[in-house]
Amino acid sequence: MTSRLPAVWKRLSSSITPRPAPPKGYLHGPIRDTAFPAGYALTGIHCGIKKTGAPDLAVILSTTPHAASAAACFTRNAFKAAPVVVSEDIINNSGGRARAIVVNSGCANAVTGKQGMEDAWAMVRATDALLEPAGQRETLVMSTGVIGQNLPISKIIAGIESQRAEGNSLASNFSAWERAAKAFMTTDTFPKLRARTFEIKGKKYRIAGMDKGAGMIHPDMGPPRSSGQLHATLLGCIMTDAAVSPRSLQSALTYAVDRSFNSISVDGDMSTNDTIVVLANGAAAGPQDEIDEERDRERYEAFRDELTTFAADLAQLVVRDGEGATKFVTISVEAGYGAATYEDAHQIASRISTSALVKTALYGEDANWGRVLAATGSVPLSVPLDPTKVSVSFIPTDGTPALPLLVSGEPEKVDEVRAKKILSVEDLEIQVQIGTGKESAKYWTCDFSYEYVRINGDYRS
Amino acid sequence: MTSRLPAVWKRLSSSITPRPAPPKGYLHGPIRDTAFPAGYALTGIHCGIKKTGAPDLAVILSTTPHAASAAACFTRNAFKAAPVVVSEDIINNSGGRARAIVVNSGCANAVTGKQGMEDAWAMVRATDALLEPAGQRETLVMSTGVIGQNLPISKIIAGIESQRAEGNSLASNFSAWERAAKAFMTTDTFPKLRARTFEIKGKKYRIAGMDKGAGMIHPDMGPPRSSGQLHATLLGCIMTDAAVSPRSLQSALTYAVDRSFNSISVDGDMSTNDTIVVLANGAAAGPQDEIDEERDRERYEAFRDELTTFAADLAQLVVRDGEGATKFVTISVEAGYGAATYEDAHQIASRISTSALVKTALYGEDANWGRVLAATGSVPLSVPLDPTKVSVSFIPTDGTPALPLLVSGEPEKVDEVRAKKILSVEDLEIQVQIGTGKESAKYWTCDFSYEYVRINGDYRS
Repeated sequence: MTSRLPAVWKRLSSSITPRPAPPKGYLHGPIRDTAFPAGYALTGIHCGIKKTGAPDLAVILSTTPHAASAAACFTRNAFKAAPVVVSEDIINNSGGRARAIVVNSGCANAVTGKQGMEDAWAMVRATDALLEPAGQRETLVMSTGVIGQNLPISKIIAGIESQRAEGNSLASNFSAWERAAKAFMTTDTFPKLRARTFEIKGKKYRIAGMDKGAGMIHPDMGPPRSSGQLHATLLGCIMTDAAVSPRSLQSALTYAVDRSFNSISVDGDMSTNDTIVVLANGAAAGPQDEIDEERDRERYEAFRDELTTFAADLAQLVVRDGEGATKFVTISVEAGYGAATYEDAHQIASRISTSALVKTALYGEDANWGRVLAATGSVPLSVPLDPTKVSVSFIPTDGTPALPLLVSGEPEKVDEVRAKKILSVEDLEIQVQIGTGKESAKYWTCDFSYEYVRINGDYRS
Repeated sequence: MTSRLPAVWKRLSSSITPRPAPPKGYLHGPIRDTAFPAGYALTGIHCGIKKTGAPDLAVILSTTPHAASAAACFTRNAFKAAPVVVSEDIINNSGGRARAIVVNSGCANAVTGKQGMEDAWAMVRATDALLEPAGQRETLVMSTGVIGQNLPISKIIAGIESQRAEGNSLASNFSAWERAAKAFMTTDTFPKLRARTFEIKGKKYRIAGMDKGAGMIHPDMGPPRSSGQLHATLLGCIMTDAAVSPRSLQSALTYAVDRSFNSISVDGDMSTNDTIVVLANGAAAGPQDEIDEERDRERYEAFRDELTTFAADLAQLVVRDGEGATKFVTISVEAGYGAATYEDAHQIASRISTSALVKTALYGEDANWGRVLAATGSVPLSVPLDPTKVSVSFIPTDGTPALPLLVSGEPEKVDEVRAKKILSVEDLEIQVQIGTGKESAKYWTCDFSYEYVRINGDYRS
């Protein structure tokens, strides 16, 4: 056994300052107020959960007269946090409609028994009361933070109620969206906010969203079940002013989440609170439920694909901010030379993304393709892998040609200088060709660093 | 993204000396020559693979006139290293008999194409020639080390052939067993050798064995398949002088491996070379195939249980020497309050054992039971988990009472001072009660430290 290295630990703890601010590009700087979807009012405030005084409560209201369509995906963890149970209940009993979202950070309200359920419902009721006319069970609730502690519920309720008063901070401009995004943060080093305009059949829509997460990130989320095994510390919400039927909003979200949030990993650990919700309030005008799979498949698919791209963008921000991460790595099981089923391709990409040996080699900038291969080979597949058909390459992000490491099961004579150069860049893609089918999948992951160990060896204190 | 911290990296690399020698207890010091099974001659030499001059070639011969019964379990990785393919072939075509084992360290002979297969067969032939009378395909072969490089085969063959000369180093005493164990080592910090005497129905047998491994340790090994998907960098061999039928030796080994080598994890990564072989040469005298499941079930089960205990002891040595490990942690899904199936119990124990968040919390000596719970809940089970039946406790190794952290789904008010004290000891048990069935399972794992990142960020250089 290694000695405990207390001296090094202490030196590291004192010499490593908190993670530096990321390049501005991650936030994209200020966003034009007109880029955000119409018909939403938001705020983010400090209500008293976090000792630091940082924002810890976000309120998001849809201000259109009719309720927005709502859809959600929840973690498949067996230990559902109270807010997950409550939000699932609301979605299941509302016919897929909601008008508000309330989020707190600093405490996950997970494994908190009956009190936790009462607290989550109290957050719903207080937020419902902000709506005009007042709502009933029309608020979705999310919490993130430490597991096993009760919420300081009176502070949270006071924070929500403060938004009923004159001079409240609810607004629709960039500043309000940014404040809400900041209130999602726990170990995140920057708020994660995106907005985009898209066009379908000549009509313009707007979509915006925010998410949070830096650790306990390996989501596996599915649509709500009436009595299920589902549950989330990745939280995200997406708002659009498109008019989408509830049913089609759920199927578009389920599709999008599989190819975005369910395809990222920081540490391979699935949380009890992972939740992604989407609201579509139709404020862009047009007929109710204009976008519906059965009414107009083409329009629906265009929307679904926009949602998927947008969700992938938000999901990747989480990996960029992965605890201790110094690399952003795309693992792709390639189309045309892919696996027999999407599930096989996705499983292989997931396994490589979570391999401690692959992730430490990435941190050490070591072109150790043998570890990629060992991880690939360890996945039980529906169609057995043929080692003589497998190829592995590094795809540089500077536009220079791919660097083959293994071709049809035979190792290449690798130019180690070039490999080192490719690995020294922050962004990198590892491409695996399986060669048994045409299904492809992508995963986004990061490396494993000293800093990861420091952050997680010392989280609660 | 975190800055690359090159200064810290360098400081760590220079300030952390290679892992210190473990307490003597891990090797048990010298073992009496008479404790080893009769009828084996061994050696371990330096043949020229390792640049350091350390032993890198082990030869183990059974010296009884008839071939020993032989059984093996190989990794289930799809990328079989050449020695795995060859050893599987030999076992499958010999009726479960063999007379020798040859092992090299420093190079895994994995992903080495046709040349790799030829090299593995060459090692078999050279070792067969040491036998008297000379054997044919009676040697099992194992390799461990870097993937994707060819063996320096002429050096290895010269090393094997040197044992034909007068004055060779083959012997049966402690020194020979220890030299062989040393030749297994790669990143191991100590040789792993054990010997034991056991008694069945009044008759004494001896068993001894050695293994190696410190990283890429999360074996999943099964019995040989004629055309399979199997493969291993955990290597181990066990020799006994009991007389066991080949069929019963294989079923006893498969049972033992599931409860020993397949229940340990250092980093969650499965190797392409993992192999465990057992030889039973009957030198203790007695009728041939004396121990056989159909002939005498009681005697067989006694042998199987001895083999299981012995294998678990060898397997745990690997976790003790886990790369960067500072803790030895038993994860137990408890009998009586266990899972519905052994597979469920084993999967839960495996998932907790590989959680990066659990392992960094252990390194940080943080009683973060929420992470244990999140890992437990993320496993898909045959019988869904009921959160209100789950309990989690720390079991101290000093004989003091268990410390309950979660009881029937409700968090306990934890005495943090006591928790910290329990966590500060090198050995620790985390017990999880599932409460849906009576099946229990144990896993042995270690923590995740700065040193782990250092070793694996910089392995090949």
